[in-house]
Amino acid sequence: MSYLKDNFLLTNKTAEKLYNDYAKDMPIFDYHCHLPEKQILENKGFNDVFEIWLKGDHYKWRLMRNYGVNEEYITGEKSNKEKFIAYCTTLGTAFGNPLYHWSQVELKEFFNCEIEINGDNAELIWDWCNDYIKLNNITPSSLIEKSNVSHIFTTNEIFDDLETFVKIAKKDYKFKVIPAFRADKIMNVEAKGYYSFIEKLQTLTGKIEDLDDLESAIEKRLREFIKVGTCASDIALQNVYPITDKKEAGEVFKLAREGKSITDAQAEVFKGYFTYFLMKLYAKYDIRTELHVGAMRNNNAVMLEKLGLDTGYDSIAEDNSIKNMSRLFDRLNNENSLPKVIVFNLNPKMNTEIMTLIGCFQSDEARGKIQYGPAWWFLDNKVGMEKHLDDLTATGHIGAFVGMLTDSRSLLSYPRHHYFRRILCNFFGTMMEKGEMTQDLELVGKVVKDVSYYNSINYFNVK
Amino acid sequence: MSYLKDNFLLTNKTAEKLYNDYAKDMPIFDYHCHLPEKQILENKGFNDVFEIWLKGDHYKWRLMRNYGVNEEYITGEKSNKEKFIAYCTTLGTAFGNPLYHWSQVELKEFFNCEIEINGDNAELIWDWCNDYIKLNNITPSSLIEKSNVSHIFTTNEIFDDLETFVKIAKKDYKFKVIPAFRADKIMNVEAKGYYSFIEKLQTLTGKIEDLDDLESAIEKRLREFIKVGTCASDIALQNVYPITDKKEAGEVFKLAREGKSITDAQAEVFKGYFTYFLMKLYAKYDIRTELHVGAMRNNNAVMLEKLGLDTGYDSIAEDNSIKNMSRLFDRLNNENSLPKVIVFNLNPKMNTEIMTLIGCFQSDEARGKIQYGPAWWFLDNKVGMEKHLDDLTATGHIGAFVGMLTDSRSLLSYPRHHYFRRILCNFFGTMMEKGEMTQDLELVGKVVKDVSYYNSINYFNVK
Amino acid sequence: MSYLKDNFLLTNKTAEKLYNDYAKDMPIFDYHCHLPEKQILENKGFNDVFEIWLKGDHYKWRLMRNYGVNEEYITGEKSNKEKFIAYCTTLGTAFGNPLYHWSQVELKEFFNCEIEINGDNAELIWDWCNDYIKLNNITPSSLIEKSNVSHIFTTNEIFDDLETFVKIAKKDYKFKVIPAFRADKIMNVEAKGYYSFIEKLQTLTGKIEDLDDLESAIEKRLREFIKVGTCASDIALQNVYPITDKKEAGEVFKLAREGKSITDAQAEVFKGYFTYFLMKLYAKYDIRTELHVGAMRNNNAVMLEKLGLDTGYDSIAEDNSIKNMSRLFDRLNNENSLPKVIVFNLNPKMNTEIMTLIGCFQSDEARGKIQYGPAWWFLDNKVGMEKHLDDLTATGHIGAFVGMLTDSRSLLSYPRHHYFRRILCNFFGTMMEKGEMTQDLELVGKVVKDVSYYNSINYFNVK
Repeated sequence: MSYLKDNFLLTNKTAEKLYNDYAKDMPIFDYHCHLPEKQILENKGFNDVFEIWLKGDHYKWRLMRNYGVNEEYITGEKSNKEKFIAYCTTLGTAFGNPLYHWSQVELKEFFNCEIEINGDNAELIWDWCNDYIKLNNITPSSLIEKSNVSHIFTTNEIFDDLETFVKIAKKDYKFKVIPAFRADKIMNVEAKGYYSFIEKLQTLTGKIEDLDDLESAIEKRLREFIKVGTCASDIALQNVYPITDKKEAGEVFKLAREGKSITDAQAEVFKGYFTYFLMKLYAKYDIRTELHVGAMRNNNAVMLEKLGLDTGYDSIAEDNSIKNMSRLFDRLNNENSLPKVIVFNLNPKMNTEIMTLIGCFQSDEARGKIQYGPAWWFLDNKVGMEKHLDDLTATGHIGAFVGMLTDSRSLLSYPRHHYFRRILCNFFGTMMEKGEMTQDLELVGKVVKDVSYYNSINYFNVK
Repeated sequence: MSYLKDNFLLTNKTAEKLYNDYAKDMPIFDYHCHLPEKQILENKGFNDVFEIWLKGDHYKWRLMRNYGVNEEYITGEKSNKEKFIAYCTTLGTAFGNPLYHWSQVELKEFFNCEIEINGDNAELIWDWCNDYIKLNNITPSSLIEKSNVSHIFTTNEIFDDLETFVKIAKKDYKFKVIPAFRADKIMNVEAKGYYSFIEKLQTLTGKIEDLDDLESAIEKRLREFIKVGTCASDIALQNVYPITDKKEAGEVFKLAREGKSITDAQAEVFKGYFTYFLMKLYAKYDIRTELHVGAMRNNNAVMLEKLGLDTGYDSIAEDNSIKNMSRLFDRLNNENSLPKVIVFNLNPKMNTEIMTLIGCFQSDEARGKIQYGPAWWFLDNKVGMEKHLDDLTATGHIGAFVGMLTDSRSLLSYPRHHYFRRILCNFFGTMMEKGEMTQDLELVGKVVKDVSYYNSINYFNVK
Repeated sequence: MSYLKDNFLLTNKTAEKLYNDYAKDMPIFDYHCHLPEKQILENKGFNDVFEIWLKGDHYKWRLMRNYGVNEEYITGEKSNKEKFIAYCTTLGTAFGNPLYHWSQVELKEFFNCEIEINGDNAELIWDWCNDYIKLNNITPSSLIEKSNVSHIFTTNEIFDDLETFVKIAKKDYKFKVIPAFRADKIMNVEAKGYYSFIEKLQTLTGKIEDLDDLESAIEKRLREFIKVGTCASDIALQNVYPITDKKEAGEVFKLAREGKSITDAQAEVFKGYFTYFLMKLYAKYDIRTELHVGAMRNNNAVMLEKLGLDTGYDSIAEDNSIKNMSRLFDRLNNENSLPKVIVFNLNPKMNTEIMTLIGCFQSDEARGKIQYGPAWWFLDNKVGMEKHLDDLTATGHIGAFVGMLTDSRSLLSYPRHHYFRRILCNFFGTMMEKGEMTQDLELVGKVVKDVSYYNSINYFNVK
């Protein structure tokens, strides 16, 4: 039997009560994830626990590499079972790592398996889970429904096929799947094959000769997205660049469109303008902007060549950009075009800089118009979440917070919402027991429910 | 009855004993605040709790904006009572925010009101406090005396009228009010209306044609300040700029004096030299320099236009400047002209950089000649103070620390000193109970008293 | 009797059990320190406690300066006893400072002295320790053996005499002393007297006319080091500089070799290439690279002139360099020449940036090929270590960690290993008692032993 008890992460009775009475049963609104909508539509079953649990999960790969595991057991030619055992062995002593908790919770919640994960138990767990899979008809939709999910925002490139969402809506799933609009592939002018993305977009929107055409094409596509329910968008940037002139940006675009090679400086010129353009457009259609900043991507060229993007070779960036963020928000605000924004920041040293900045752009358009997003990616762990709550409550209003997301490629990630809720309830429960806040359980419980679910419902106002 | 108990923030018996026997009754030396000296001199009563508690307090305004409150209820046309209710409603669920604690403490200490602050109780509190105001003759001096304040350093521009301080000294108040010298309006050459500040200064000191004249004028004014007791000064900078040549700075000054527009780069040239000049001057007269770094001001141009400076639209800056600070201190030290300095830093990521730097410039001129100031503004909260104590004790000597200030515009802010003292006593008490430091209560108590009061008395050596 | 109890820093029974059963008796592998090998060879006794405990310890000097002690009592002409008393007086109230703990532990472990350190007890301690020294034959080797040290890596300049190590090896000490190879004096082209270092090197390796010669000379010396057992090297940089061309670097070297003055920019050009060259060389011979980044040195020119290097006037740097580090590692990795690296970072704000970056360059060459070194220098304290463990476990794998070092000039520093082990055991013990990790004491105990000792044995693979 594993170390997981019912009061996991709940260090006192008040915290337990808050979690059990107010948090546990709230539905999940997952306003940003990387689940492939086609997988949800096709809804196929799985052959073994590796396919559901390990395949494609670069968080787990990184941990194995840290522990000195040979790549053959990670992304290589070894069998599913050998890889599974290597992961369990790695995890057995990864004390303090978020995967140490998540993996154990996932086995319990999705496979009813309470065997402690380590090398000795690996075979036993392999058998248990595979038996469970055989006995139960596990599909993407069954996993999502088991997790009590009400809404999923997948993140979709501008040229993705929207028909999938129409088809999903016709299924009798108990949850909605809605695309969040993303134009990153159009923004990243320096990327290899940029021209091909513009080609792809053209087939949907007509000829794109210059930046004006591009802007029209983007708006056209955004309207198509809105038809299938879109009310959110994603922008990912290493940092926020200074706003540039449209003219300059247009020149860079022309070069990129022609397949010319683009320097880092030129790319920043384009992105500086393009971010501003996108956010202005999002304001026009009341599309929430989820702004992801602070990742330095693809550090290891050898492995990029071998495995491609998003395989565990990204890290936390250090770039200063709070001045640029200030000027971007201020300019949009001046033009009455500042959309609702959720800032996801990956570098914890910048928490309070950004939190205090967004406090300068609030208004009564929404409770927490500009949000500081939850602890994310490398920060999505107990220490990161606790620091996030400390910093957020010290400089903002917890009652306005839209709460957790998964940001995940895995169907088994929904327990992260419960992980967050436990930490939230423990945060409040501990302050209550210490006499640092109200003893009114109903009032606190209401905030727990809001942060767990209702705030996101209200903030995104999905039709 | 609110959640506030006598042992608020004191988690063990030793902490309670330290607070009650050594900290609680010490007077307050408030070595930096923004109280208007004229209000203290005039000493008028108040009409309602809004006037004392909410008016002009941009900390509270920010929190309300974060919660989506309409500006009409913050700085707009709504009645005092409506604004009061909106604030109480906002505060009811602002768990973890420093205002959540401070506001409740202020009601208790100044109005004897123990009703928990929230929307439901707002009317009740409104009536209670206004009745209390009617029954008791509450004035600025009565509030200050009730707080057991011995000294107040207001921060005053170079051209402020010093007669007010002479008049206050003749009153039979139980506290002293002394101006801290501030030349920021003279330093900020890029500001609108800069010329008018030079005009104003000229009427007091004679013609100012060039930088030499300006320096003489400043020294003249400083001597006037010293006559009314000044022994401290304030400098606020987004970050520390490189020291520049006087000649270059003089050229920028001439442009600014003529009302020409000044670029950011030119302003930095001027400030680089000017900071050096001021600190050298302060060293000559043994004036402590309170150096406030790390605020990025006026992020929101729309609201700056509407409401002016200091209305809740500032944030934490990210600028790197530790090298510049090192060179500034080193140059002054080389010239035997490094004054006593208190560095107030607003960005917690820089705590240890600055703390370890100032450790390179200590001497026997004072216990803690170069001070790392207390957790300040956005950091003036439980988490910020605890981090400050962790960092300060790990890299410096707590026994040399001059302790807390209010930095406030509000007469009700003195409980922040008690808030800090509770956290300090809990910090020591907890280590004592864990066996991580001496069990000698007298010895620890002496340090508590020093940090609460005596260290500031000795450091400022007020005549 | 001092506050130190057997369960110092161990807040629960599980933590105590882990420490007593698994950590306490493990030997010490000190893979980086500044002990003078000649002192170990000569093995002379000491005259008084000042000589062993205070002499040359700039950590202690800084604390005294912070407390306003006159330099005469620190590095000046006062007697050993007067200096000793001044230090004890300073320490008496330095609650929370690591020296407050270390000093008390050192008295207990090396002098059997349990008197609490403060001004009142200073004379008593002085007498006790000096009596102890007279009664016991205390020598460098006896101190090291008492500490159960198995290996010591001293840090040695490229031109240091290696004969000392041969002689030490012939003594019947119970520990090995091995030099870590260091070419910093050759790297720091901007330093005064740089030419003399090249001269010194030439006498060992033959004429050095250009960068090619220099590279050959370095490789020659490295081979000599390897003959006496070297398997590690040190590089200290304020930050990581961009990789530059060999040609450019060669031009800077020629200027420096001729005794010309070198600008900061030129020095960076040289260091950018030279770091790359060294690491490539280290990869060739499988020499672990201990990379020390983040110190800003010699801030106080007056005291540098008076006391020289390493006298307590360094601080934490702020330089951004994660992009440069990424490119350096990536380039080496591309060329199949990335050595095993331990990154020691002095600025805690950069912990997670660096930790996540090194996670991009792991492989099965070693468990934790690229290590994030322990909390170091200004961070070598309880808060720093706890943050280090939090950050390391959240983003990496604790089971791969090579653990603690002393980085010290003092023979009494070995208890810092026990200090770290107590904090490590308390970290695990607390999570176990909270139900946040396995309850399997044997499994956790194995990790404790690995981190305390076996991981460093395996990582350095000393012959």
